[in-house]
Amino acid sequence: MEEYLARIAPADEVAMRAAAERQGQLTKPPGALGVLEDLSVRVAGMTGVCPPAVPMPAVVTVFAADHGVHAQGVSPWPQEVTAGMLANFAAGGAAVNAFAANNRVEVRVVDVGVATPVEELDIVHAKVRLGTRDLSVEAALTNDEVRAAIAVGFDLADTLVRDGYRCLLTGDMGIANTTASAALIATFTGSTAEVVTGRGTGIDDATLAHKTAIVRSALEKHAVPATDPLGALQAYGGLEHAALAGYILGGAANRVPVILDGVIAGGAALVAQALQPHSIEYCVAGHRSAEPGHAVALKTLGLIPLVDLDLRLGEGTGAVLAYPILACAVRALGEMATFESAGIDS
Amino acid sequence: MEEYLARIAPADEVAMRAAAERQGQLTKPPGALGVLEDLSVRVAGMTGVCPPAVPMPAVVTVFAADHGVHAQGVSPWPQEVTAGMLANFAAGGAAVNAFAANNRVEVRVVDVGVATPVEELDIVHAKVRLGTRDLSVEAALTNDEVRAAIAVGFDLADTLVRDGYRCLLTGDMGIANTTASAALIATFTGSTAEVVTGRGTGIDDATLAHKTAIVRSALEKHAVPATDPLGALQAYGGLEHAALAGYILGGAANRVPVILDGVIAGGAALVAQALQPHSIEYCVAGHRSAEPGHAVALKTLGLIPLVDLDLRLGEGTGAVLAYPILACAVRALGEMATFESAGIDS
Repeated sequence: MEEYLARIAPADEVAMRAAAERQGQLTKPPGALGVLEDLSVRVAGMTGVCPPAVPMPAVVTVFAADHGVHAQGVSPWPQEVTAGMLANFAAGGAAVNAFAANNRVEVRVVDVGVATPVEELDIVHAKVRLGTRDLSVEAALTNDEVRAAIAVGFDLADTLVRDGYRCLLTGDMGIANTTASAALIATFTGSTAEVVTGRGTGIDDATLAHKTAIVRSALEKHAVPATDPLGALQAYGGLEHAALAGYILGGAANRVPVILDGVIAGGAALVAQALQPHSIEYCVAGHRSAEPGHAVALKTLGLIPLVDLDLRLGEGTGAVLAYPILACAVRALGEMATFESAGIDS
Repeated sequence: MEEYLARIAPADEVAMRAAAERQGQLTKPPGALGVLEDLSVRVAGMTGVCPPAVPMPAVVTVFAADHGVHAQGVSPWPQEVTAGMLANFAAGGAAVNAFAANNRVEVRVVDVGVATPVEELDIVHAKVRLGTRDLSVEAALTNDEVRAAIAVGFDLADTLVRDGYRCLLTGDMGIANTTASAALIATFTGSTAEVVTGRGTGIDDATLAHKTAIVRSALEKHAVPATDPLGALQAYGGLEHAALAGYILGGAANRVPVILDGVIAGGAALVAQALQPHSIEYCVAGHRSAEPGHAVALKTLGLIPLVDLDLRLGEGTGAVLAYPILACAVRALGEMATFESAGIDS
């Protein structure tokens, strides 16, 4: 872990200043590209280059795992849907596949802890265990399991960047994973269970009240302080959250932009932030999920979402939707004429 | 004009019902793709097909013109910047070029009324006159000029669809064109000059107060009712607004989605709405501009913007940024597996 964290440096201030200055010379009124101007400056800081290259090719990695707390009835969906959706990803039939095909993003799927065997699927097999333990009864993971799942994500980020990818997007799949996310977000933001627990894929009022009670009781039972990110992953899981935290840290260590998807990535990013605050300088919030905990997480992360369209699917769909916006921001910085080069007297 | 309007039919309710039903069968919780689900249903209605084909290739048409009211000092930019930016578009150096290259959108540039000669540029030459007259002194255009500019936009939409384009995006360029937009938006929304007049490319408080007074006085002077859209274009212009209104009507007549850019397109779409309300069923609001009149226009149009990132540039940048979101929405509807086809028991 210490080796991983030591590889993460702050964003490059010199490149950021050069990018901000260049924004003022491009053929447009100063500030007219709004949020995209800041975004381009941030990417200069991440990559240490001004103007930065267009962050392509891009890849969305869908980390999949199951959750022992599913046994408590926090989701109307059977746990087997996680494995079923993995087959759907592998066959190209899910929403993330359709979005990724449109936006020229490649899709990788990683089994980091699905509760059922999925060896037959053409995906990355890195199962740490068959789902987490039930966080309402005991710690979801051991310290070794947490470290193993973080390593899956970090090492995969290393591999992807070595293979030429220049933008890493987060994705996730796991029935009941908004319950673990709520506990993680409450831990790192100091929010109550009521504020961060939501309807996930769509649950009724009674199930929401039950799910919220489960989260509240787990927060009291485990009582992990915000200063103990590995302890929080042990207490609540999930394996995909741990892998995502590693993947975010790995993206930061490799100085490439990481586009976060929704509430699951939000929980994982809070873990990464607690482990190494500079890692968030490499993160872009793809969208704001309809799940209430996500807005709370983004506030603590200090990130402004690029897209806000009431999505609540996960899989990486919000990150993939945001990717062209990031690419456009970088292209504008690198490819636009300046008033001087265009011969326009401003 | 009557021939144009007669070609516009309402969206296809049968295709929309089929699309809504299909959304309920796809491998995701119902509603989990938020705004994108409604968007896909709307495109089914526009095209009359379920599932609709991906709306590609796409083209953004930048209609450029100048404004006589520039003489009143409503903008800090010299009028010659309009022609300078046309050369920049033609050379591929503007923001819209960078965004369009990223999002696989072609760029067409049309001179429908630039105040200076630009014959040497490789663009579409359809100049109706050398800029409008000063709306603060007299009517900006004659009825014949309005009709000629509308025809430029409508006929170009016909040509583009005949050439194979399946999604039309609006773009615009014209120093001082937010002044004409404010007057148009006030006319069709019943708002005051104060509510709809903004800082455009960036003006100081004193210039904003002056610009607002110009708009207020012009609204009193011409007093065009909301029921007289051609009269409003005569009174205030601009030639690009008239051409854009024609282009929007032409997209609707050809049953292809039209992605609107910002406040200039908003003013033009209100004209189109007043001429033929069904035309707005073919419009998608690309983004919400930072210009205050735009939100007012979108409310009257009944459109929800896909992107809201504080852009205030025009050129079509907001529409181009939104295009992949529209394409993703359509792809999800057409390409995702259903629970039945994926063999998942939901």
